[in-house]
Amino acid sequence: METMKAVVKVKPELGAEMQDLPIPKPARADWVVVKVRATSICGTDVHIYKWDPWSESRIGRKALPQVLGHEVAGEVVEVGVHCTRLKVGDYISAETHIYDDGDLTTMLGSPHVGTHMRIVGVDYDGCFAEYFTLPEKVCWPNDPAIPPEVASIQEPLGNAAYAVLGEDADVAGKTMVITGDGPISLFAVGVARAVGVAKIIHFGKYDLNMEIARKMGCDLQMNTNETTGKERLEFVLDHTGGNGVDIALEMVGSQNSVDDCFAMVRKAGRITAFGIAAESPLPVDYNNGIVFKGCQIHGINGRKIFDTWYRNRNLLAGGRLDPTPVITNVFTLADFKAGFDKMIERPRKSAKVVLFPDEKECQAALKRLGK
Amino acid sequence: METMKAVVKVKPELGAEMQDLPIPKPARADWVVVKVRATSICGTDVHIYKWDPWSESRIGRKALPQVLGHEVAGEVVEVGVHCTRLKVGDYISAETHIYDDGDLTTMLGSPHVGTHMRIVGVDYDGCFAEYFTLPEKVCWPNDPAIPPEVASIQEPLGNAAYAVLGEDADVAGKTMVITGDGPISLFAVGVARAVGVAKIIHFGKYDLNMEIARKMGCDLQMNTNETTGKERLEFVLDHTGGNGVDIALEMVGSQNSVDDCFAMVRKAGRITAFGIAAESPLPVDYNNGIVFKGCQIHGINGRKIFDTWYRNRNLLAGGRLDPTPVITNVFTLADFKAGFDKMIERPRKSAKVVLFPDEKECQAALKRLGK
Amino acid sequence: METMKAVVKVKPELGAEMQDLPIPKPARADWVVVKVRATSICGTDVHIYKWDPWSESRIGRKALPQVLGHEVAGEVVEVGVHCTRLKVGDYISAETHIYDDGDLTTMLGSPHVGTHMRIVGVDYDGCFAEYFTLPEKVCWPNDPAIPPEVASIQEPLGNAAYAVLGEDADVAGKTMVITGDGPISLFAVGVARAVGVAKIIHFGKYDLNMEIARKMGCDLQMNTNETTGKERLEFVLDHTGGNGVDIALEMVGSQNSVDDCFAMVRKAGRITAFGIAAESPLPVDYNNGIVFKGCQIHGINGRKIFDTWYRNRNLLAGGRLDPTPVITNVFTLADFKAGFDKMIERPRKSAKVVLFPDEKECQAALKRLGK
Amino acid sequence: METMKAVVKVKPELGAEMQDLPIPKPARADWVVVKVRATSICGTDVHIYKWDPWSESRIGRKALPQVLGHEVAGEVVEVGVHCTRLKVGDYISAETHIYDDGDLTTMLGSPHVGTHMRIVGVDYDGCFAEYFTLPEKVCWPNDPAIPPEVASIQEPLGNAAYAVLGEDADVAGKTMVITGDGPISLFAVGVARAVGVAKIIHFGKYDLNMEIARKMGCDLQMNTNETTGKERLEFVLDHTGGNGVDIALEMVGSQNSVDDCFAMVRKAGRITAFGIAAESPLPVDYNNGIVFKGCQIHGINGRKIFDTWYRNRNLLAGGRLDPTPVITNVFTLADFKAGFDKMIERPRKSAKVVLFPDEKECQAALKRLGK
Repeated sequence: METMKAVVKVKPELGAEMQDLPIPKPARADWVVVKVRATSICGTDVHIYKWDPWSESRIGRKALPQVLGHEVAGEVVEVGVHCTRLKVGDYISAETHIYDDGDLTTMLGSPHVGTHMRIVGVDYDGCFAEYFTLPEKVCWPNDPAIPPEVASIQEPLGNAAYAVLGEDADVAGKTMVITGDGPISLFAVGVARAVGVAKIIHFGKYDLNMEIARKMGCDLQMNTNETTGKERLEFVLDHTGGNGVDIALEMVGSQNSVDDCFAMVRKAGRITAFGIAAESPLPVDYNNGIVFKGCQIHGINGRKIFDTWYRNRNLLAGGRLDPTPVITNVFTLADFKAGFDKMIERPRKSAKVVLFPDEKECQAALKRLGK
Repeated sequence: METMKAVVKVKPELGAEMQDLPIPKPARADWVVVKVRATSICGTDVHIYKWDPWSESRIGRKALPQVLGHEVAGEVVEVGVHCTRLKVGDYISAETHIYDDGDLTTMLGSPHVGTHMRIVGVDYDGCFAEYFTLPEKVCWPNDPAIPPEVASIQEPLGNAAYAVLGEDADVAGKTMVITGDGPISLFAVGVARAVGVAKIIHFGKYDLNMEIARKMGCDLQMNTNETTGKERLEFVLDHTGGNGVDIALEMVGSQNSVDDCFAMVRKAGRITAFGIAAESPLPVDYNNGIVFKGCQIHGINGRKIFDTWYRNRNLLAGGRLDPTPVITNVFTLADFKAGFDKMIERPRKSAKVVLFPDEKECQAALKRLGK
Repeated sequence: METMKAVVKVKPELGAEMQDLPIPKPARADWVVVKVRATSICGTDVHIYKWDPWSESRIGRKALPQVLGHEVAGEVVEVGVHCTRLKVGDYISAETHIYDDGDLTTMLGSPHVGTHMRIVGVDYDGCFAEYFTLPEKVCWPNDPAIPPEVASIQEPLGNAAYAVLGEDADVAGKTMVITGDGPISLFAVGVARAVGVAKIIHFGKYDLNMEIARKMGCDLQMNTNETTGKERLEFVLDHTGGNGVDIALEMVGSQNSVDDCFAMVRKAGRITAFGIAAESPLPVDYNNGIVFKGCQIHGINGRKIFDTWYRNRNLLAGGRLDPTPVITNVFTLADFKAGFDKMIERPRKSAKVVLFPDEKECQAALKRLGK
Repeated sequence: METMKAVVKVKPELGAEMQDLPIPKPARADWVVVKVRATSICGTDVHIYKWDPWSESRIGRKALPQVLGHEVAGEVVEVGVHCTRLKVGDYISAETHIYDDGDLTTMLGSPHVGTHMRIVGVDYDGCFAEYFTLPEKVCWPNDPAIPPEVASIQEPLGNAAYAVLGEDADVAGKTMVITGDGPISLFAVGVARAVGVAKIIHFGKYDLNMEIARKMGCDLQMNTNETTGKERLEFVLDHTGGNGVDIALEMVGSQNSVDDCFAMVRKAGRITAFGIAAESPLPVDYNNGIVFKGCQIHGINGRKIFDTWYRNRNLLAGGRLDPTPVITNVFTLADFKAGFDKMIERPRKSAKVVLFPDEKECQAALKRLGK
């Protein structure tokens, strides 16, 4: 039996181990096996790596051992007998929300929030490995010209695109606040720039990440550690003719950030609720922020399958969007602990971390990224 | 100088007085004067009548004396020299949100939430009088076949239509929770029924109002005084295949009602935030109710000018919608105190109260309403 | 080997034959076998029955023999090993557009118009039989309370709903012209009525069908055989304040009907292009009908999967919509020739014809329909 | 009485004359007088200059003499007594569609296509003059940083934005064909690029204009004089994975161009019908282009008031969009005949021509434009 290297969560405590595991077969007849070329670390992986209360309740120790990871680019090496679209050799990335065909939301066009939806690397073994298996239906065929480190980060880039575009994609020529230092906030700045948001105001607090936001195309910036909510509100009003922004992207989940967004959005504007609140219920200015303003709030979770994938592929292929400034670190998969250390470090000194099972792919990526 | 009867808020305390005032002239060259045929009492009028803290801060005692009232049907008796659309004899109702043409929201199609918007009966003398003056631009030409008591309540009926339809009007064949006993909740039940909402679940607590909701067409009902939130949630899940409703209309503003709506809406569903929270900030289940569900919240305030007026006129003219069960009481304007007493009485024994300056109009209405 | 009765197109000429065929097995591992309870005749079946030029080019004589039929209600009697949602005993109807998961349109939410889409009864053996096989993914679970003759006609009812609602479903309180005598036009009248279209103007030419349109809820009607286009235009303008209708449903495909719809729709209105033109290219008043008016045209083909199914199930279950007046004739499957004769007869003396493999089901339906 | 220079259409034949006319006063109490800083020549002006059959029927010789022109940037020098938003000194451009407040379309949010809409320079004296008068309500306040030659061309730039965005503005990351050599086609290329259309395929036939399209940001191009429709279709399919483009902008009005767009749009895609057909009715591939594909066609006429103005102002102010490559020629107003000669010349050697009443403004513009 052939084996592979895989990063396995073994015990319900901080950390993970590199193990030799059997190369998987398709889990079902309509699943495929993918050879991983690049895989990137998501905040969810960090939660599991740390084994915080969310991991304990969402995954549970009975599920262990389990392979981590869900952001990926790779090559199909085996297809189940019932697969219809993919063939060996296809270069794919993964929509990690394995939607259930029987969910009402799936049937009505929102598969990404279904009741029975499962997640790669959370409900199944993930892709921090040389090989992994997943359903054909969540594989997205990549443009071969897209390098693996970029193909891998399309999953969070899709979150960013969905957050920016909201449910109606009506953002052209509008003004926008984007909050947060995380990779998805930074990607959102880039997407917003690419799709014609005309004034992008970024709120962050870490130097490196704020610098990346500038590279990604924000027009104005404030450091939330150095300003009060009142100052930020006045700043936004000053730069929007006193109206507030058309659209506010809440991507932090803190009380301050939610308060900022509810205060800064203009009447009849839109708030994207993307950040997960540290505590929920959370007090919000229900009257002034929603009712009296006549605002819309769009709760955004995951990606529109496959709408955001299609748009992002086109934006990448057309050279409209370069997400690589957000990729701050690349390592071999063998060095996964270095990657997690980077992700966990505070104050933040990183944004997106990509891992390569193959040393040569890693070197090639370093070269492409100019690092 | 000719005079008229008018219900005037004189002092910053409970009550109002009938006074003789001069019949107004058009306040500006593009305003008209209207002879009132029917006028109805809104919750806002009750706030002012009671002179609660909202009235003190929103209107202020310096504005007194001021004529109350803003829901109306009447006949144009004088047009300012700069009016272009209306002529003497036209039968109109009033959009009471006097939008400002220079507000960004007005320029972008949402005049009803503009920064400089003023309100009839709040920022100016209102229509609880034999005559009043208002801008031509907020006059809506009525179908002559609509009786004045119905024409008058088109303003809150428009709130109801906007709340039901939300910003995208996509409700046909969907399921909906509607909360509250007030006239706008009851109108919303009727509008929802008329526009093809396929399952309407009403939550109320007063017998009379719940009976009216049934007459207006709800399919299922729960009394919030006799049930827990958990029971209501289970009831809704039972009647929606376990999914929750497509759309939840929050029209009460209480913590319980907001909690109900956030819990009962299905994934990728829509919440209408119409009710004004008794206290704001208000804790909401931000994560489970918005983010993870991928819901939309539409803050609804006022009416879409004149989209909801157009739809409602058509629904009324086509016999699709009969709002008269909500009109529980009619009085002459001289009896305005009886009307306010009805509105203030708790437990509620009324829904909508209509006042007629003319005794004969009042008698005719009583006859039409079968009272 | 067990056999069944099936209506088979044998030769490329008028007609079809009842034959004994083996009861099918699931065609693939994710297909099911359904025992047919009711099946209804579509215009497409009539084309194939007649073997007109469309049939010759679309199906081709090489495909023969082939079982006809695609509108159906039945019971699942066998599920392929790879099915996930359905089980034996489930009561289903069929979305007959077997979409391809790899089509871009499928991936972007419009599976019903994909390049590789196949159709039951056109590209495969159909359901004019005691049993047939189809993919699990196009099965729609019916409400058990819906009788089979109604469940069967949900497929064309879905066309009607999609035509009425268009791509944005914004029809509440609007005015609409609906053209044509066919079942889908008549269903459209019923759907329009159910979803709050406030003034429905129907154009037909056959007495029986126009009578059914009135039963389904149209407000006004004109006979296109007895009126000129100019008269119809004036009639529509007279009943819409001179503006024209908000929405015009072209469901005939004739030059006159297309001209009517382009002329009658108001500025900034919407035309549904549903009828297939007898000849295409077809001259249209491009400037006055589209450009200068700023209209939208929505080409409608099939059903929104499964959006229209969901809405219609709710409308039927909630008693908002009764499509049975459109069912003019029921026969046993053995009498299929009588059914086709009814469909072919001109002047039209029928609308929808339903066939039942089982004599008792047929009798029960006759009783329910009061025939 | 003070006089001014104005370009006047005097006789119903080719040409126009510079005349001395009285400086106008506000035509009504809610109109203003504007001192023209820059004005640009539209195709409509050329029609009137040539006095073609459209001019004869639309304007009529009884209206002569009349001042030409409607694209403009200028300074308010007098406000009618009933104006509310503007003051002397404001720097404005003109929405030239003077909508009627009583039109149903105005009341429902589409004022630009109202029945009683009038047009500056067509129904009234225009702006090819040192001063002109227009309603305050169609004045758009410019950002002072926008130079007058750019502020003037915002009107056709708004057409372009509306054509690109359509009614739903959902274009981010999509593919688009844009047809035509005229200024609005070229502006559309620039807008499409600015708002994130990911692949822009331009069809033109004049070298200079095709070069400008490349400067404005198209990705691919074909010369319609040198290719067949079949070749263009194959080219588009080759560059869109065989699907066709998401959106096709028909901006020419020729049979070939309309045929191209109907053929090239993908299933469930969108066609913008902007070009006015040389002859209407026009044959279109109704079945394959609309019905079977399930496409939408958006007839686009004018600008969304003031939605497109707002977006464009933001795009210009944010440096997202530089329309100046389309401005090929600038002249003083005194040289208006040179401007019209440029516009009429075929093969085309120009795109947008801007005229300046003031010689110094003209020189400054030349310098800014690097000409």
